[in-house]
Amino acid sequence: MTEPILVKKRGRPAKIPHHHPDTREALIRGGTAILTEQGFTASGIDGILKRVGVPKGSFYYYFASKEAFVREIIDYYGRYFVRKLDKFLLDETRLPLARIQAFVDDAARGMAKYEFKRGCLVGNLGQEIGVLPDSYRQQLSAILADWQQRLAHCLQLARGAGQLGPQADCDALAEYFWIGWEGAVMRARLANSERPLACFAQGFLAGLPR
Amino acid sequence: MTEPILVKKRGRPAKIPHHHPDTREALIRGGTAILTEQGFTASGIDGILKRVGVPKGSFYYYFASKEAFVREIIDYYGRYFVRKLDKFLLDETRLPLARIQAFVDDAARGMAKYEFKRGCLVGNLGQEIGVLPDSYRQQLSAILADWQQRLAHCLQLARGAGQLGPQADCDALAEYFWIGWEGAVMRARLANSERPLACFAQGFLAGLPR
Repeated sequence: MTEPILVKKRGRPAKIPHHHPDTREALIRGGTAILTEQGFTASGIDGILKRVGVPKGSFYYYFASKEAFVREIIDYYGRYFVRKLDKFLLDETRLPLARIQAFVDDAARGMAKYEFKRGCLVGNLGQEIGVLPDSYRQQLSAILADWQQRLAHCLQLARGAGQLGPQADCDALAEYFWIGWEGAVMRARLANSERPLACFAQGFLAGLPR
Repeated sequence: MTEPILVKKRGRPAKIPHHHPDTREALIRGGTAILTEQGFTASGIDGILKRVGVPKGSFYYYFASKEAFVREIIDYYGRYFVRKLDKFLLDETRLPLARIQAFVDDAARGMAKYEFKRGCLVGNLGQEIGVLPDSYRQQLSAILADWQQRLAHCLQLARGAGQLGPQADCDALAEYFWIGWEGAVMRARLANSERPLACFAQGFLAGLPR
């Protein structure tokens, strides 16, 4: 579900200069990779620093705390995901409902690429919400509301094109999709298979009002 | 989503005798409560012992390791959940589809009772599967397969009663339900509200083939 972050090369890791925008970016990208795999509680800053190859002093130069760091990671992931969503949901070469299927197919490929070890950052953190700083709740909810609005727009296009019946409540359907989606991503990790994503897309699309 | 485990009373906690079946049961119940709130990584054995009020020595008398302990908790939770499911899905005073709605309504009341702090143990551990002992994967998958089979049976009754069309693939629909369900529980915790559960039930039932 995430971009490839750090391709490990053989030999000594390239030195990343201190106080450099690239270091900041590398920390956010490395943190995103780890959080999509492990969630917040299991992810230590030490592991992220090691993965990115920067010394501990650098971390606190760029981020005031683990909490502030994760807030930036959530923003980064939200922006990344929206680019991906728009790529599919605004793709005028496909009919609107086929765009949803294409998004799910792409997500399945993305999960398979990382051997179903990476989930959705929003789902991971949502599952841990009880032990997370309170500020994350609103941030994650805002991201989900944004995804919902983009999907509702696509469903409205489907209704306009006659792919859905005129009675379709596109906002409610989009809300329903994202509620189930995080379950589908979790199950794909548990099953080590894209099958739950395919089953979810099939069930959702088959149940739409025609 | 879980039974009330340990009602905190004022004053000194009642002593629980060592090497007693009640202590074992109390540890499993206390562990279940903590795992439904926090998941595996954030839950330490120390916190569970403190909650239950037994000394550390007792733990290793009853369980060989944290891993073995959590295996028993998963079994316990699976049995508890199946009793709850059967209570609703086999309730002959309701039409089959109304039984599914009644189950969701009950789950929503259960989550509200714990202020949306407790999720589903299976969903919590599923989300953490990447950092968990491998043996849990099969155990969790078996529990979900069992729930699926019970729901498929209820959907078959609905088909037989004419609530669903003859074309309904009850196994696929039951699989779809549980895939989305864990997402709905996660979202209810994130939103601090039963709304995602209600939206999920509404979307699922409205999309069934009639």
